[in-house]
Amino acid sequence: MESPVHRVSLRDTWSRQVHPDIDCERCIPTFSVERLTNILDGGIHNTVLRRKVENIIQSDPVFNVKDHYFMSPDEQYEAAVQKRFHLEMLARRLGWSEDSPERIYAERTLSGYTSLGIHYVAMNTIRSLGSDEQIAKWGQLGKNFQFIATYAQTELGHGTYLRGLETEATYDAATQEFVIHSPTMTATKWWPGNLGRSVTHAIVLAKLICSGAQHGMHAFIVPIRSLQDHTPLPGITVGNIGPNMGLEYIDNGFLQLNHVRVPRQNMLSRFAEVLPDGTYRRLGTEQSNYLAMVVTRVSLLLNGILPFLQKSCVIAVRYSVIRHQSHLQPSEPEAKILEYQTQQQKLLPQLAMSYAFHFVATSLLEFFHSSYSAILNRDFRLLPELHALSTGMKAMISDFCTQGAEICRRACGGHGYSKLSGLPTLVTHVTASCTYEGENTVLYLQVARFLMKSYLQAQVSPGSTALKPLPQSVMYLATPGPSRCTAQTAADFLCPDLYTTAWAHVSVRLIKDTVHHTQTLMRSGVDQHNAWNQTSVLHLQAAKAHCYYITVRTFKETVEKLDNEPAIQQVLQRLCDLHALHGILTNSGDFLHDGFLSGAQVDMARTAFLNLLPLIRKDAILLTDAFDFTDHCLNSALGCYDGHVYERLFEWAQKAPANTQENPAYKKYIRPLLQSWKPKL
Amino acid sequence: MESPVHRVSLRDTWSRQVHPDIDCERCIPTFSVERLTNILDGGIHNTVLRRKVENIIQSDPVFNVKDHYFMSPDEQYEAAVQKRFHLEMLARRLGWSEDSPERIYAERTLSGYTSLGIHYVAMNTIRSLGSDEQIAKWGQLGKNFQFIATYAQTELGHGTYLRGLETEATYDAATQEFVIHSPTMTATKWWPGNLGRSVTHAIVLAKLICSGAQHGMHAFIVPIRSLQDHTPLPGITVGNIGPNMGLEYIDNGFLQLNHVRVPRQNMLSRFAEVLPDGTYRRLGTEQSNYLAMVVTRVSLLLNGILPFLQKSCVIAVRYSVIRHQSHLQPSEPEAKILEYQTQQQKLLPQLAMSYAFHFVATSLLEFFHSSYSAILNRDFRLLPELHALSTGMKAMISDFCTQGAEICRRACGGHGYSKLSGLPTLVTHVTASCTYEGENTVLYLQVARFLMKSYLQAQVSPGSTALKPLPQSVMYLATPGPSRCTAQTAADFLCPDLYTTAWAHVSVRLIKDTVHHTQTLMRSGVDQHNAWNQTSVLHLQAAKAHCYYITVRTFKETVEKLDNEPAIQQVLQRLCDLHALHGILTNSGDFLHDGFLSGAQVDMARTAFLNLLPLIRKDAILLTDAFDFTDHCLNSALGCYDGHVYERLFEWAQKAPANTQENPAYKKYIRPLLQSWKPKL
Repeated sequence: MESPVHRVSLRDTWSRQVHPDIDCERCIPTFSVERLTNILDGGIHNTVLRRKVENIIQSDPVFNVKDHYFMSPDEQYEAAVQKRFHLEMLARRLGWSEDSPERIYAERTLSGYTSLGIHYVAMNTIRSLGSDEQIAKWGQLGKNFQFIATYAQTELGHGTYLRGLETEATYDAATQEFVIHSPTMTATKWWPGNLGRSVTHAIVLAKLICSGAQHGMHAFIVPIRSLQDHTPLPGITVGNIGPNMGLEYIDNGFLQLNHVRVPRQNMLSRFAEVLPDGTYRRLGTEQSNYLAMVVTRVSLLLNGILPFLQKSCVIAVRYSVIRHQSHLQPSEPEAKILEYQTQQQKLLPQLAMSYAFHFVATSLLEFFHSSYSAILNRDFRLLPELHALSTGMKAMISDFCTQGAEICRRACGGHGYSKLSGLPTLVTHVTASCTYEGENTVLYLQVARFLMKSYLQAQVSPGSTALKPLPQSVMYLATPGPSRCTAQTAADFLCPDLYTTAWAHVSVRLIKDTVHHTQTLMRSGVDQHNAWNQTSVLHLQAAKAHCYYITVRTFKETVEKLDNEPAIQQVLQRLCDLHALHGILTNSGDFLHDGFLSGAQVDMARTAFLNLLPLIRKDAILLTDAFDFTDHCLNSALGCYDGHVYERLFEWAQKAPANTQENPAYKKYIRPLLQSWKPKL
Repeated sequence: MESPVHRVSLRDTWSRQVHPDIDCERCIPTFSVERLTNILDGGIHNTVLRRKVENIIQSDPVFNVKDHYFMSPDEQYEAAVQKRFHLEMLARRLGWSEDSPERIYAERTLSGYTSLGIHYVAMNTIRSLGSDEQIAKWGQLGKNFQFIATYAQTELGHGTYLRGLETEATYDAATQEFVIHSPTMTATKWWPGNLGRSVTHAIVLAKLICSGAQHGMHAFIVPIRSLQDHTPLPGITVGNIGPNMGLEYIDNGFLQLNHVRVPRQNMLSRFAEVLPDGTYRRLGTEQSNYLAMVVTRVSLLLNGILPFLQKSCVIAVRYSVIRHQSHLQPSEPEAKILEYQTQQQKLLPQLAMSYAFHFVATSLLEFFHSSYSAILNRDFRLLPELHALSTGMKAMISDFCTQGAEICRRACGGHGYSKLSGLPTLVTHVTASCTYEGENTVLYLQVARFLMKSYLQAQVSPGSTALKPLPQSVMYLATPGPSRCTAQTAADFLCPDLYTTAWAHVSVRLIKDTVHHTQTLMRSGVDQHNAWNQTSVLHLQAAKAHCYYITVRTFKETVEKLDNEPAIQQVLQRLCDLHALHGILTNSGDFLHDGFLSGAQVDMARTAFLNLLPLIRKDAILLTDAFDFTDHCLNSALGCYDGHVYERLFEWAQKAPANTQENPAYKKYIRPLLQSWKPKL
């Protein structure tokens, strides 16, 4: 067995001895946890580097997060800015360059407890949408935090529908400046992170108006606070938008611009520019300014969304082998709650998803890296597919991670409601990802448009001789599969080809039915837009099925490649099976609808699913250990590596302000209440 | 049109003119909102009384909750205790007796922003489990707050499984006292509300030991703090358990008892008593001590759980007619988001559930009132059914209300993440109800046991000549319906008998299949307990279908009785249809499984469902107005009656501490960061 030294909280006395109830889960591992960790990290060297960074971060008292749950929002904000400052100084000292793996691992270790992170989103926007000169200038300044920026897109009255944004940038050829202006209250920029009281600059998305014509949304670099004393610059009204459900330290802000002037050079102009005389010149497509959002979404998945589900799984699964409740047999002691089928059914599909999404997000990242530089060089052929994939995966992963984190939280009973479990914070943070960077329903409908287009294209030109080939991810729309599932036993459902085919079938059928339904409406006289709206619930369902299919297929292909790791291949195969079957069972109506599955086959799939649960349960602790989150990073009284749940919960609770400060209500209200009638006790 | 004066925030200048986008939704009502409000209130006299109480509460500055979202947990606690004190004084002045409708309406108006509410749970426990003498003594003292009590059941290591509780009450015949003791750390009472630093007494649930024998869980009144100076009494260790996901002001606490002695008279002894010599005498059944939990669950539904969903609907629906986004037609202005099918599909089923659950909870309350006094008089015949119904409804209503509140929150996009919308607080509060008063999975499995028993009983003695008749709520298990649905068009699915029959069919089939599956396992040699565990996922599903069926049936019967209100009957009929069909579509696999519905029929049901959406959408604002929540009670910048969303959001945000206090991070970290490289800008 590998030493778990890197995982435990060394300063906790409990950690000297691991709780026997969790220790026994690790004593005869069926596969090498360390090797699986390496696979997740993308190689041993990454694991080594990550742990090195974690050690540096965690041994530094400034990066301690233990008091986090007791802090006020203001204290959380201050601590998060402090951590950013400290991290920046540390990185310079140690030579961790921007975008280096060390930086990424440091952010992972700090679990987002740092502020000013939107600066990097803003810098990525400059790198995606800026000209080479702009990147050279602002990239260098931004790298050194000589200014601090946010990305200001959404407005008080406008969100995901970008063409609805009201902020205007009117070009004044006389001075060669843009006049950036919020014409109404609803045009107030609302939500940008770090804007409230932190940043000095904003990348403002605004409607470009030049030579009397409107040219759609463009991005402008706008200084908003003095670099000398941080006061708002003339024409700027800026502040914090108030308390939110979570992410208390992000300092979301609002911004009103009253005819603020910026030089012509401040419009990001890789894909469009305004010449000194006001001539507008487009260098890309109409969609190219959306590229910044694609970049943000892709990078979010692995670092900004998925860890919330993975950590929730680690905490809930570990707690479930420590918590005992009720008896499986009257003669035996109370059982670990993970022995119960209902608990397994809650947690293990979340664990399977944690792996499924890791692999699909990794695969998307690879596709992104292979297509990004072409797009920057104005070859837009892969942009529609990259947009559809990143959009769909962002929607699906954030949806399921949010749902899964809450399932994990509730699976811990009452203690899951305590902030000290770490779970409430995970849930309230991850749920934000369903809305930011594009509201999920809107994103799914964008995928649906891509699917409808692809489906119609596949109909026109089926087979490989098509003039314009289908994008790789939707090639399956052109290849009809069997119309009935061939499974005859529960065991048949443990065949990756069988369930991948089943998912392809359902996805194609839903897309086909939806397109036909839309066309039927239009043929009956309903105009295109109303027909779309009246079928949008169906389109949504089809897009979801497609995304699930992509995930199942990617997971299957990933497992297939692990031939040289038979033990790990076996355990991941089970997770892949579970993920595919869980989806089939929760959507069984879609599989039964056209008789692709019979009722008897659904029962077989359920039997296969239920039989997998105890098999995966045996490895559950190892599978969560493999994510290799340290106790510091989990910050959970329930989820520590050593399993000392109750001692930790009890000790942490003692530090609550309510236990260390005087009761403000006793003398004022409780005593008067008790004495409001003559005491008779 | 009725005057909306009672609803608006009179002191808000915006309220003088209602926003035209919401005004036009109300101008030609298809039914009388006021009359529907009366129906929901259970009569005009109740509406009148409720509004009278609301006016008194809302005109009192102490009950203002506007600053709530900006308060620290400690400030929230103090404010909540203050409100309780003030309410108590007010109630005595105005002669609002305990349990009077005025009190209930006052609590509704205050939306739970009061503390010490668990005192009433404790008092109900005394009234359910105490002898007449105990009720006479403690009831009087408690009524006047001469002591303040909590109900202390769950322990650090033990929750819903009551027989696992470790706290001991050992009878000492020599002194005629019970010695109450926490033998381990995991026996620490954990979670009781108001325990941390507020109450003086606790109703402690403990294992009774007398004359050397254990007698299971009983309830004991234990003084824990001095009535003079509020310090913990000898042997008592008590404190707050730290921050939680929500309900910050509840002051959940922990309690360790070190051989604390209480007199023999402090054991609640309606259903069991210990004689002076230590003889144990049972006066009820083994289950009778669970009666207190039944009382709590039943009373929770209408006042403690359902309003969270109803308010979420009000806020989200109102916001959805103010918010405009994208174009339904390119030539038209941006459309209200409520015009979109996907938005309707999110919100309107929640609205339908809000009504469905109101009627089913009301019906349960009536059944409770008709059976409670018999049970108190030790006639336990109706207890199993009351237990099963209250358990199932608590699980189903809290599950769906939590899910629905989060759907409403997300349907408001980014602004739903702002605490100022009110929605985050509604979500984080209602989700607690899935866990407290019995974890939902455990509760559903209790329903499943009742269903299995009832099903087997129905098999033994089908028909009306049975010796022991089936409980009324499960009588349908003995009456087989058709094996195929007869619907031939979408319109056929708007028939209440048709979909009620469909739900009955699916519920019976799932119960039957599950029972058979369990029996097959046992016949194959699996012992009873393992067979139960291995089928518990199926049992869960069957119990959920049964609860849904009960709700559909009750809603249908309620609507049928509204013959004399045709306009209201029509609009409620649509909601009933929508609720039934929404459930069929989200569980279509269960209906397709045995061919009860065909794929074509599911498509018809979906068409019927989608066609209902725009019809209900027309009445959506009126249907949310009918809940008659005041702006004060909603405390939402998005959900006010007048529709002035953006003005209010903007103004409320200005009051955030981040905008009124100095930035603690600027001088310490932001300025040093900006100046860490020589400025070049």
